[in-house]
Amino acid sequence: MTVTPETGTPPTRGKRPKQGEPVIDRALSLLAVFSDRRRALTLSELARYADMPAPTALRLIARLVAWGALERLDDGRYVVGVRLWEVASLSPRGHGVREIALPYLEDLFEVTRHHVLLAVRDNEQAVLIERLSGKDATEVAYRVGGRAPLRSTAIGLVLLAGADQQFQETILKRPPENEPGVPEMPEGQLRRTLSDVRRTGIAMIRRTVPSRTVSVASPVFDAQGAVVASLSIVVPDGSTPPNVLAPAVRAAARAVSRNLGYQAEASAGVRTHSPG
Amino acid sequence: MTVTPETGTPPTRGKRPKQGEPVIDRALSLLAVFSDRRRALTLSELARYADMPAPTALRLIARLVAWGALERLDDGRYVVGVRLWEVASLSPRGHGVREIALPYLEDLFEVTRHHVLLAVRDNEQAVLIERLSGKDATEVAYRVGGRAPLRSTAIGLVLLAGADQQFQETILKRPPENEPGVPEMPEGQLRRTLSDVRRTGIAMIRRTVPSRTVSVASPVFDAQGAVVASLSIVVPDGSTPPNVLAPAVRAAARAVSRNLGYQAEASAGVRTHSPG
Repeated sequence: MTVTPETGTPPTRGKRPKQGEPVIDRALSLLAVFSDRRRALTLSELARYADMPAPTALRLIARLVAWGALERLDDGRYVVGVRLWEVASLSPRGHGVREIALPYLEDLFEVTRHHVLLAVRDNEQAVLIERLSGKDATEVAYRVGGRAPLRSTAIGLVLLAGADQQFQETILKRPPENEPGVPEMPEGQLRRTLSDVRRTGIAMIRRTVPSRTVSVASPVFDAQGAVVASLSIVVPDGSTPPNVLAPAVRAAARAVSRNLGYQAEASAGVRTHSPG
Repeated sequence: MTVTPETGTPPTRGKRPKQGEPVIDRALSLLAVFSDRRRALTLSELARYADMPAPTALRLIARLVAWGALERLDDGRYVVGVRLWEVASLSPRGHGVREIALPYLEDLFEVTRHHVLLAVRDNEQAVLIERLSGKDATEVAYRVGGRAPLRSTAIGLVLLAGADQQFQETILKRPPENEPGVPEMPEGQLRRTLSDVRRTGIAMIRRTVPSRTVSVASPVFDAQGAVVASLSIVVPDGSTPPNVLAPAVRAAARAVSRNLGYQAEASAGVRTHSPG
């Protein structure tokens, strides 16, 4: 990548900017510093984590605050702003799918009163875009906006099984995910599992950490028949058997798909027949 | 504002950038173009709405797509990306309050099965950060991520009543909001209403458009006693009387406040007494 007149930046007196990294990338890198465990950061923390001089960070932060992408707390730390949240709520793969899915997630939640999750794929991970959880539900590993691995979670396996073949081969070659409490599947078993998920419309994973749970997930399709999201429930292992839960999960995923314009008749494994 | 060496941009061959508008502001202005009715936009639409030459827009868009703030659809249009959604989910005033509030919103939803809303204030408007709606619920005017006026909605009145005095005076001087189906309150009545909201912890508004509804809202306080959010229910006018619903709404708002570290004893109008 080369520096363009539009987005290039001159060298600063302090640390030189990385070659070919335009100012907009550096502003975005400040946003990328925030995470589940870094929700409020000082100027010096932001500069350090984003790897830029504090004066540079301060100038960029001032623009981000002026627009509302960041907000400054009374104690001087910075947090992600509600204006950014507002724009991001227009993300079709984030909020859009979520808004369409929510009533059906709520129906499914009524059945189990534990956890109902909805995720989309971003590169090599699943991003959780919704989680409904009972106040007394069993502990789970993931929060909304957080990421989950593709090969060792039910919600991830569904997204992986629905991805294009070339992407699947890339993921199959990756080193183990080392997800706590989930046995790693050898490549052959993983291939068979992905094939089963495509055929049955259901993925199932047992895990022992942070608690003994069973997850059952099913794909959400868009009007073009692509897997755009994955919907799952997580219940304590030993409560309702997964084969009893699977039809409810698949029905909810199909209802969401239908609302996204999907024609269920066209799908393998979940064919419908008109009566008579 | 002056152009700094860090964020300033040289003039382009086409339309000159606005004086003192750094490249980061222009990138953000591209994000700001998206709205409820503009969720997927072509390059030329983005350039036109953001008021910049198409080549400039294209270069900025390329950086936003590379990072994941925007995504390109198969038809060439651009939408807000799931990566931006992911970062924005860390907004304490957006997703943070929402995550803490959600179980209590669900409890409240069980009571009415219509609409439960949660909003925070951004400048002179309320931003809706959550809405739970029954599939058969009455039609309402607002969507999640959308904005509502402060003086002619119950959820907005609660936020206005909790704002600092100087801000309230500014809003009281604004021209009418002309919210469809809600009679505009004269200034004197509005002042009394805001005072009542502070005293009782309840705001109530009847509206006739898009359907005949009653909204009942109550404030959510943080650990410092500031009003950080407003929680409301919307039901068809003529169903459950507002005075029957008010205690449930106030109880839910207090439960959320308590989870944000608020000491309910310190508040006017909602004092608690230990038994015995």
